[in-house]
Amino acid sequence: MALQKISAVYTIQYFMPDLQAASQVNLEEKFTLELEDCYGGQVTGEDILRTDIDTTRMNQATGPVYVQHLRRGDVCKVNIERIRLKRFGIMMTSKGLGVLGKEVTAPSTRLLKVDEHHVHLTDDIRIPVNPMIGVIGVATEKEQIHTAIPGVHGGNLDTKEITTGHAIYFPVFQDGGMLALGDMHAAMGDGELNGTGVEIGGEVTLSVSRVANRHIAAPIVEMDDVFLFLSSAATLEEAIEVCAKRTVRHLQEQLTLDFQTAYRLLSASCDIRISQVVNKLKTVKIVVPKTVLPKLFR
Amino acid sequence: MALQKISAVYTIQYFMPDLQAASQVNLEEKFTLELEDCYGGQVTGEDILRTDIDTTRMNQATGPVYVQHLRRGDVCKVNIERIRLKRFGIMMTSKGLGVLGKEVTAPSTRLLKVDEHHVHLTDDIRIPVNPMIGVIGVATEKEQIHTAIPGVHGGNLDTKEITTGHAIYFPVFQDGGMLALGDMHAAMGDGELNGTGVEIGGEVTLSVSRVANRHIAAPIVEMDDVFLFLSSAATLEEAIEVCAKRTVRHLQEQLTLDFQTAYRLLSASCDIRISQVVNKLKTVKIVVPKTVLPKLFR
Repeated sequence: MALQKISAVYTIQYFMPDLQAASQVNLEEKFTLELEDCYGGQVTGEDILRTDIDTTRMNQATGPVYVQHLRRGDVCKVNIERIRLKRFGIMMTSKGLGVLGKEVTAPSTRLLKVDEHHVHLTDDIRIPVNPMIGVIGVATEKEQIHTAIPGVHGGNLDTKEITTGHAIYFPVFQDGGMLALGDMHAAMGDGELNGTGVEIGGEVTLSVSRVANRHIAAPIVEMDDVFLFLSSAATLEEAIEVCAKRTVRHLQEQLTLDFQTAYRLLSASCDIRISQVVNKLKTVKIVVPKTVLPKLFR
Repeated sequence: MALQKISAVYTIQYFMPDLQAASQVNLEEKFTLELEDCYGGQVTGEDILRTDIDTTRMNQATGPVYVQHLRRGDVCKVNIERIRLKRFGIMMTSKGLGVLGKEVTAPSTRLLKVDEHHVHLTDDIRIPVNPMIGVIGVATEKEQIHTAIPGVHGGNLDTKEITTGHAIYFPVFQDGGMLALGDMHAAMGDGELNGTGVEIGGEVTLSVSRVANRHIAAPIVEMDDVFLFLSSAATLEEAIEVCAKRTVRHLQEQLTLDFQTAYRLLSASCDIRISQVVNKLKTVKIVVPKTVLPKLFR
């Protein structure tokens, strides 16, 4: 049977408690979302500069999808089954954009050819494709949060491990979860240092599982051999402290450890890494090996 | 022939321009340094707490070693041939130490058994050994810098990729280089989040190569498939900006790229990662794949 496909005409600009569903799916049902690039089709050629576009309309997310039998207070696990990218990506530079934004003297836009294996950055330089989903999240508990901003509900996490074959767990704040996705990249390094990945549209096939009677404080990515605990805050220092606190609490609960032992375990065996440093809130990830934490919940 | 071995009785507490050599070696000659743990033997049991030790005498580095034919203005490449660890490591927690230092109510010291493959954190929890050198550096250009602080001369970089089989490049500020090492860890995650790795003494076997007529701004680690460009500064944000600037300059020079293209290449293909967030200056590393930069210097 053909999978249900949700068109990119159904988008949201804010994650909030009260969202109108674009579609409904069952638990474990595979479905596909069509995604526009983060500029929502505003960039039609290399003559369109960052200064020409309406940045308040950036990072729109397709959805939201109501997942039946998912209840407020659950945890949901979003399985990323497949990503298909369009054939052209966009990279913009602009004054003030990214960590060296001060050195950019004039804005520029490049449309880059993307084939199955490579992004063609110039005629001579090609880099490996690593497709990823920049914006992914669920309805919030109370706040109205622009899709360009990350938080405990997900949103603009810009975490390159959110990709095919991996899963991401969210706290479910509203019945049905209300999942929405946007801001795909054909490639991006940790940090998103110049302020953009290789921005691109495409399609994502997903399924959602329910984890009842469990609690997480913020999104967690699951890979083959590690979990990534994500946290976002105004500064990197603050994000690191919050992320370390959440990770240590989780290790204490799941492994029955006192604080000091969990704190030593964190320092000796877990990596703090950077997802992105260019959004209004910065996102970090603590890498917890499955040799330390075999299952997220015992 | 037996390798020259330099004893841990020869240590420095500061990297500075004018250092007295503990020994001399030839270019490409393998030699061994004996290293004390970062506490310099002050921790003789679990009853010795962080509050009992003289922290101004921490992180002493064995050496310095004068490398013949190495000249001020060169680049040197330090090849890490072999690391041997002692059998016990130390992990201390203390009020204010590490990113969750506020939550530590009482100091504690643990002596941990270290075997060939594992650090035994508790009777039940063991983590893989990943030996690394925390302090490694050369004589400075002008300043006197405590061995607990990182900088362009190296010092307390606390970068876990500084380990067996990898190499680290330094700018040579003084004839002979004047290499010194200390602060080994049997294991540490990126960030060194609680303020310590598994602190341990041991022996390191090294050799030094000369790279003449080349320039680097700060230390660079070479691994099989990537280079790591290191930078340290008072805040993570500042360290990231400095590191991005140095990396983009290097990509521009070596690949003959304009700034905008190099900036895009950085963002799409290079990861910014964290070495440590617990020293007076924080250290970050930008991971440049050899698919992007095959050789450090063309």
